[in-house]
Amino acid sequence: MEKVTYFTSGCQCYIEESVKTGKNFSCGQFCVIEKNVVIGDDCTIGHNVVIREGTKIGGSVRIDDNTVIGKQPLRSKRSIFKSDKVYEPAVIGDECLIGAQVIIYAGCEIANNVLIADSAAVREDVKIGEYTIIGRSCTVENVTTIGKKCKLETNSYITAYSTIEDYCFIAPGVITTNDNYLGRTEERFKHFKGVVIRKGGRVGGGAVILPGLEIGEDAVIAAGAVVTKNVPAGKIYAGMPAKEFRDVPEDQLLKNQGWK
Amino acid sequence: MEKVTYFTSGCQCYIEESVKTGKNFSCGQFCVIEKNVVIGDDCTIGHNVVIREGTKIGGSVRIDDNTVIGKQPLRSKRSIFKSDKVYEPAVIGDECLIGAQVIIYAGCEIANNVLIADSAAVREDVKIGEYTIIGRSCTVENVTTIGKKCKLETNSYITAYSTIEDYCFIAPGVITTNDNYLGRTEERFKHFKGVVIRKGGRVGGGAVILPGLEIGEDAVIAAGAVVTKNVPAGKIYAGMPAKEFRDVPEDQLLKNQGWK
Amino acid sequence: MEKVTYFTSGCQCYIEESVKTGKNFSCGQFCVIEKNVVIGDDCTIGHNVVIREGTKIGGSVRIDDNTVIGKQPLRSKRSIFKSDKVYEPAVIGDECLIGAQVIIYAGCEIANNVLIADSAAVREDVKIGEYTIIGRSCTVENVTTIGKKCKLETNSYITAYSTIEDYCFIAPGVITTNDNYLGRTEERFKHFKGVVIRKGGRVGGGAVILPGLEIGEDAVIAAGAVVTKNVPAGKIYAGMPAKEFRDVPEDQLLKNQGWK
Repeated sequence: MEKVTYFTSGCQCYIEESVKTGKNFSCGQFCVIEKNVVIGDDCTIGHNVVIREGTKIGGSVRIDDNTVIGKQPLRSKRSIFKSDKVYEPAVIGDECLIGAQVIIYAGCEIANNVLIADSAAVREDVKIGEYTIIGRSCTVENVTTIGKKCKLETNSYITAYSTIEDYCFIAPGVITTNDNYLGRTEERFKHFKGVVIRKGGRVGGGAVILPGLEIGEDAVIAAGAVVTKNVPAGKIYAGMPAKEFRDVPEDQLLKNQGWK
Repeated sequence: MEKVTYFTSGCQCYIEESVKTGKNFSCGQFCVIEKNVVIGDDCTIGHNVVIREGTKIGGSVRIDDNTVIGKQPLRSKRSIFKSDKVYEPAVIGDECLIGAQVIIYAGCEIANNVLIADSAAVREDVKIGEYTIIGRSCTVENVTTIGKKCKLETNSYITAYSTIEDYCFIAPGVITTNDNYLGRTEERFKHFKGVVIRKGGRVGGGAVILPGLEIGEDAVIAAGAVVTKNVPAGKIYAGMPAKEFRDVPEDQLLKNQGWK
Repeated sequence: MEKVTYFTSGCQCYIEESVKTGKNFSCGQFCVIEKNVVIGDDCTIGHNVVIREGTKIGGSVRIDDNTVIGKQPLRSKRSIFKSDKVYEPAVIGDECLIGAQVIIYAGCEIANNVLIADSAAVREDVKIGEYTIIGRSCTVENVTTIGKKCKLETNSYITAYSTIEDYCFIAPGVITTNDNYLGRTEERFKHFKGVVIRKGGRVGGGAVILPGLEIGEDAVIAAGAVVTKNVPAGKIYAGMPAKEFRDVPEDQLLKNQGWK
């Protein structure tokens, strides 16, 4: 084998003069850090990372290759979201871990110790609570709140206008929806509504939840279920359409987990 | 906090001499624009964008960070698509909005006013009609036509050899398929066939459509349904396997929408 | 149209001095190739590609734009995987084709002639056999083995601790799971178990497989099925929960394919 003949040393990044970084800042190659970004101590940033204007990043954060933070939304002329407002810069808490090829929008707030895995997206007007894990390729759409210590697994999809409370578990490939009219009638604009998953609710792999429904505290949706009505607290629902199957086992209830 | 000590100003892109750009061209850092690319007036391109040789981009187009346009396909030795042909450059119409981390192949034509959201992919031999929205992480496979004013929502999957006519709505996580033989027998090569969704057809969240099937005009597939036979125009089908449920409500029919 | 006024020629990459590349090495712009990477003859690498320290890449490999190879995992404080070990560099065989925006972790071994399509991810502690195709946006989680000549189609999801033997076919959007406790109880740590798909097993579009289950040799899971118990060799299972439907047709059995 031959040795490669072109070799470039030194840092080749585009970092605006107004950027402020803390101690022990480590940054890969070909990153772009725009105006007025503030980055805390002990952060490690991969290659080809883009951090848009004004983003605030806490201490001890890791951001992997090709991730984009602080993107302003696109707005289709046909979008149901009409405003062209410019969102406030994204805010990322301390000790967050952010994977490769993640997209985090402006206008979102991510608490301390959150993990956002590769290729996930977090849209504008979203809040994510501490210690929550957003799995690979998950999408958290706009105008949505995710509580603390939740786990959203790979490819799960949280539609716009949703609320996921603390300690929820969303298995791989779960689909939530917010438009019972599937894009027709003017009427639908009055009814757009995501899902609500109350504290400790859990949803199994590949389940589908119809618009506007509420999954009660500590309730469980079985894998593959299609949820067409509200699910009461502490019950397991299964099937298509999902029906009551049985109570959640006592030892699996939040109050018996000893979690802080 | 300390101020960062390395700072680079000016544009660091790789743009071939033969590239032509219109008025008010705005381009981020570390972009690669290959030979003979033509870009219209008033376009805005993010950071780390790759535009492959010969691509034609209309006016007033926005392209976000890390997107790749004009990729030539990979061909496995085991692929059912045998040719090694080099596809014509991609053509992107006026006023298109293209998200971050999108992949658009050579050999596709995208009409005016199309929105392609983050992380979506559009393959070779694909045409997409005007004002259509391709949602986040959608895949439109090769040899497929999508009409105008369609909406494909997040994570929906359109298999190769499909036709989606105008005004269709494809909800999140819809799966289409094109091989009833699941990769076995030589016979299967004669039967590869995607799905056909006629004008105004709508498919609910997480529904699965088997190979070669046709969803009639203005028909609706309920969320989570598994479609195993053709669905007549104007009917709602639901369940696994999907069966007739009822007629689509009058006020939801295309002819009663007053759409242009 | 005006001609663009800024133009940069030459290669702008960051390639460490210790990198070794073979004959006919072709590399795009803004790539980062870290220390001690070894790349065989006749390789073609796109733009913005990141190859992490020590990665070994065979001959005649194509790697497309924005792909990351050799990433070390993130570890949440709440992850069930506790170790902070540094994984061995990734090893990629000869004649592999790797799409755009792929993420391949350190600690994985990919045999010759594998195709990994755009936006797919292959995690640490994974082995993939020769001639296997990993489709677009597929995820192969950690501690998993995939045999030779398998085909995993777009958006299919292979959970951690799984085994997929040779000649398997996984249709689009298939979901596998590994935690029957959905994140609750200490008990669950003893039972984490992915799926096993025996030689020639096939799984239809959008099917969901519950944790720890085994799909027998040459068995078939119908599209949309939810598999809640083991499936015997040579049987077709369908429905929710999946039940025996009939035998796999003789002409579709592996032994009648004449495959090498």
